[in-house]
Amino acid sequence: MANSRSGDSMTSRIVRVLDSFTGERTVQTATQIARRTGMPQSSAHRIVNDLVEAGLLERDDENRIRLGMRLWELALRGSRALRLRQAALPHMEAVQAQIRQHTQLAVLEHDEALFLERLSDPDSGANVTRIAGRLPVHASSAGLVLLAHADPAVRERVLAAPLRSLSPETITDAEALRKLLTSIRRRGHVVAPGSIEVISTGVAIPVRDHEEVVAALSVVLPRASPTEPAVLALLAAAKSIERDLQNSH
Amino acid sequence: MANSRSGDSMTSRIVRVLDSFTGERTVQTATQIARRTGMPQSSAHRIVNDLVEAGLLERDDENRIRLGMRLWELALRGSRALRLRQAALPHMEAVQAQIRQHTQLAVLEHDEALFLERLSDPDSGANVTRIAGRLPVHASSAGLVLLAHADPAVRERVLAAPLRSLSPETITDAEALRKLLTSIRRRGHVVAPGSIEVISTGVAIPVRDHEEVVAALSVVLPRASPTEPAVLALLAAAKSIERDLQNSH
Repeated sequence: MANSRSGDSMTSRIVRVLDSFTGERTVQTATQIARRTGMPQSSAHRIVNDLVEAGLLERDDENRIRLGMRLWELALRGSRALRLRQAALPHMEAVQAQIRQHTQLAVLEHDEALFLERLSDPDSGANVTRIAGRLPVHASSAGLVLLAHADPAVRERVLAAPLRSLSPETITDAEALRKLLTSIRRRGHVVAPGSIEVISTGVAIPVRDHEEVVAALSVVLPRASPTEPAVLALLAAAKSIERDLQNSH
Repeated sequence: MANSRSGDSMTSRIVRVLDSFTGERTVQTATQIARRTGMPQSSAHRIVNDLVEAGLLERDDENRIRLGMRLWELALRGSRALRLRQAALPHMEAVQAQIRQHTQLAVLEHDEALFLERLSDPDSGANVTRIAGRLPVHASSAGLVLLAHADPAVRERVLAAPLRSLSPETITDAEALRKLLTSIRRRGHVVAPGSIEVISTGVAIPVRDHEEVVAALSVVLPRASPTEPAVLALLAAAKSIERDLQNSH
């Protein structure tokens, strides 16, 4: 009933349609959606119509399709992402006011770092992070913290897979990475110079809900900046976020 | 293919499942989801399994279901909500730093005000608004601004429907409301004392993208506060947001 002849569930086809939208591609025609998802035109048009009717997609006067406000509402209203982000935002603002560089909150999602929030100062430097964007766990400072505290099975899976180089300084050797993860658990934070972009240093620490690490808080500094003030600001913020998460239960 | 025997599309059933989660109900069992959506247990369990497999829902160790991070990611990544909110956030922070009360951003969604962002000061007063929550357009200050600038067809539909009273001061007379909407368009802002809660006054102004009103920016003040500083702060913020939206095209 819910399956097409190809055995592909209706849910997974809806995901493919939603997944064809990105921060750089916010408007598409149904024909483009069909091409990008590899679905037959007729199926893609039918699913798009269904999703428009349900409000998950919106169609403008020129027949172009965007993600709908209803989708946004359904995805956020009862989400862990919103709860985490609400607990974190005031304390991220405090970090940002003090350090005046990009301040970010990420969670582990399917072996990658998914960014829930990002605050930027007009004067802050280069930063590839986007809200609802992802970065590899072995390269981003937030990802390294998340990986250090992940389930051992996740850690072994990431270490066993090819470790892609994002910059000449990305750690791509599994044994070196394993040592770094041990040191992150011992020291309680990471300073990752140049692992994403040679001109920047990421600094990150874990955020706990009860005993479990649920997120990483990070700042991206220009390479030459001292890192100690950032570590201290992040530690203070994480402590406050953890207190607010406790109180929100 | 995508339809159940009841003629209810798979998409609309997925929406019903997602819609059963709220800010107060973030964790449910599949059995509770079936009961709340009015679906047969077998269908509800099957859809929940499908959604868990696609990552749109997550199942914890105790077999309880939550909204998934993947849903959050898909809903936000290419969304108009995120673009608006990113343009607005720094300027909302400026309003909040100055007025030190709740500062909010809302859009019109199916004849209601849907709140995209809310910043709160620890000292700010009562406020019923929630992120991804809704308020009636005829009662909330943000809603009144959105309604004043809505398509005439939307305005007539809202005015023709019963106007629910949220407080003794909510305007529930269609003709009085029509006059208020005209004055909002002429004056460029609204001051709505007591229309949601008698102890608060809402102040709101429109935010335009090119010529079109795409959102409303509002603050909720304690009833006795002067409103003029809030109006001025909102006007300055709206101007900055409009400039940033222009530049983000």
